[in-house]
Amino acid sequence: MARLNVSRMIERIEYLATISATAENGVTRFSFTDQSERANDIVQQWMEEAGMKVHRDGVNNLIGRYEGTDPYSPVLMIGSHIDSVKEGGKYDGVLGVIAGIEVVTQLFEREIRPNRSIEVVAFCDEEGARFHTSLIGSRAMAGQLTDEDLQTADEQGITLSDAMRQVGLDPANYASAKRDPKTVHSYLELHIEQGPILQEENQPCGVVMGIAGALRYNFCILGMAGHAGTVPMSLRKDALTGTAEMMMAIEQIANQYPPLVATVGRLNVQPGVGNVIPGTVVGTLDIRDTDEQRKLQVASEMLSACEQICRQRGLESRFELVTQSPAVRCSPRLVALIENALIKRNIKPLKLQSGAGHDAMAIAGVCDVGMIFVRCKDGVSHHPDEYASPSDIETATEILFDVVLNECIQTSEVN
Amino acid sequence: MARLNVSRMIERIEYLATISATAENGVTRFSFTDQSERANDIVQQWMEEAGMKVHRDGVNNLIGRYEGTDPYSPVLMIGSHIDSVKEGGKYDGVLGVIAGIEVVTQLFEREIRPNRSIEVVAFCDEEGARFHTSLIGSRAMAGQLTDEDLQTADEQGITLSDAMRQVGLDPANYASAKRDPKTVHSYLELHIEQGPILQEENQPCGVVMGIAGALRYNFCILGMAGHAGTVPMSLRKDALTGTAEMMMAIEQIANQYPPLVATVGRLNVQPGVGNVIPGTVVGTLDIRDTDEQRKLQVASEMLSACEQICRQRGLESRFELVTQSPAVRCSPRLVALIENALIKRNIKPLKLQSGAGHDAMAIAGVCDVGMIFVRCKDGVSHHPDEYASPSDIETATEILFDVVLNECIQTSEVN
Repeated sequence: MARLNVSRMIERIEYLATISATAENGVTRFSFTDQSERANDIVQQWMEEAGMKVHRDGVNNLIGRYEGTDPYSPVLMIGSHIDSVKEGGKYDGVLGVIAGIEVVTQLFEREIRPNRSIEVVAFCDEEGARFHTSLIGSRAMAGQLTDEDLQTADEQGITLSDAMRQVGLDPANYASAKRDPKTVHSYLELHIEQGPILQEENQPCGVVMGIAGALRYNFCILGMAGHAGTVPMSLRKDALTGTAEMMMAIEQIANQYPPLVATVGRLNVQPGVGNVIPGTVVGTLDIRDTDEQRKLQVASEMLSACEQICRQRGLESRFELVTQSPAVRCSPRLVALIENALIKRNIKPLKLQSGAGHDAMAIAGVCDVGMIFVRCKDGVSHHPDEYASPSDIETATEILFDVVLNECIQTSEVN
Repeated sequence: MARLNVSRMIERIEYLATISATAENGVTRFSFTDQSERANDIVQQWMEEAGMKVHRDGVNNLIGRYEGTDPYSPVLMIGSHIDSVKEGGKYDGVLGVIAGIEVVTQLFEREIRPNRSIEVVAFCDEEGARFHTSLIGSRAMAGQLTDEDLQTADEQGITLSDAMRQVGLDPANYASAKRDPKTVHSYLELHIEQGPILQEENQPCGVVMGIAGALRYNFCILGMAGHAGTVPMSLRKDALTGTAEMMMAIEQIANQYPPLVATVGRLNVQPGVGNVIPGTVVGTLDIRDTDEQRKLQVASEMLSACEQICRQRGLESRFELVTQSPAVRCSPRLVALIENALIKRNIKPLKLQSGAGHDAMAIAGVCDVGMIFVRCKDGVSHHPDEYASPSDIETATEILFDVVLNECIQTSEVN
């Protein structure tokens, strides 16, 4: 069998990396922006060059369909996302979409028609970097997006609803993105590991067993602003010092339950000038664990600790749960297919847990899901230094190709 | 003697409060902006209506001069500032300028010519809210502004130098604002207390004995950004968690040395999104004490603690001292004059220490300084709720008037 065109894949990854809101510091490509629309346009072109018919659904998920011989057979979906975090890397999400297109391109160039149709999906907002609610595209496809999500606002106060209008979508139409589970057979996602295990084990790729569930809270701590020179320490209601004490408690609790992780990633201090005691702090708390039960218990322990600290300091605290994604298991059938493909190519079939969320989490509500992880340099992701080697990308895409053949081609047709 | 026109003073204070970058949440009037220029224009008009000749010096300090009978006699200066913090109050600074104009207006309307000329000064940037270096106008007048100060940038990256150009000033000309000490006899400043003592003692105003010295640092904590789901707690270099631990240490140390106070007022977290471990935190640390020696010792103790915390967490820390103002004593002669005026009007002559910085700190390098504090509701300042009552404002301005008469009028002329 001919090799994949890995140079074409790398060129496309590099090209998408240039579509960023900032010229430096990695890739910043939020959803429903000029950048996301430009990325959609070029990915649509690549899909069409691979013989796919392309449409965008009610939330701007970009869907390319490579028609199979049986139009009534549930489809095989290959997907990932093309949005990024602020100042992120080139590979997170993008790799999975480019790999899906490459697999279909191989079929198209070799004039292979699958039994079931293949759809490659570029989901619209997996990261949640703009609206602080994640998996927007894949949750819409799974019928899990809500009217409330549409009212979530970005830091400029633009709601998801408004942002959708700005790129010509009718937000009232978001439910049309929901996909009937009967029409989808399975979902495959190839993604960088975003962790250090494959590098430690010196393997190019591995199979994902499950994805950690995440809880994400927005919190607001209200104290009393005041002059930094005249309010004695004993009379202060400093919202930022209170938040600092909360963060120490959160870290201490998280340290007790590995591999659970907890992160305060965003913090906005008001009024935020050097000679004023902070009166208000707004932030996010993200908690992840592969053990669903423990995740909920630890979250409750953390929130209690925070509330007690605020009470002792005369601060008011509000925690709002904005994302709650339960831990997800990958389909044993797809895990076995991926393992077999790894073994066939003499790769140790490493079984990995994903600490990061992925579109596969939401799509697990539609159909069986399977994931392939690609080695990621030093485990670094969501950072400009994120890197996966062309050779690892090629190997992992070959594994994906093997699984796709198994899922929708009569093997005898392929030579 | 006729009463002051306190309604006029209140109207002017309220009018200036409308000149703000934001329509809500108090007053935001940074220096070298459209707002500061509009404020300068109207204050200049009020000065001219009070018979003053007005000019703006090399850094846009607005100086109104009411000519005395002896043009060679060193002047009496009455001043304060008309910039504000972000979302601050109406009285901080503005009150002292309006009181100075009111005193001169009284002299002008009664056709009283002082022996020595009186200058009312509206200093250009006392707060340091924009450039994070404070007392810009008064330090320029004292010859303490440096070329380095001109390169300090605001949050948009605009340097003080650029900002000066934007309002038509030549930054190269800043040294022309320096005032020859031989030309200034003394400086008086009336200001809200910004603390709770006068309210507790139920007095309208009091005399200031000295002003706490301030140290202000900009700090930068460098860690490693990473994916919030995939980097184990034990391998993180979270710049924000490190900063939180630093803040706990700073608070604990400050609590041991009242009335010393320490404040982290500004904190900027990068990249600042919910699912990314913070890689960089930039912030400010402000330390104030009336005991100069102790202030320096405690600052050193705090910085050592912060460095140790960062070392233990594998973070890099940088602290840069941006403001260092030594504690200042008010002139015993002016303190005595203010005390006498208080006693004459049956007010308990409360001796106060100022925890806040004031233009008087810098002007102490030019001449004797004296300050009158006005009761401030609940000690709240740098906040939209800042309030001083018309009755207290009237009483304090009368005290100022008495002291001005003592300083530059032959008492026999006044009836």
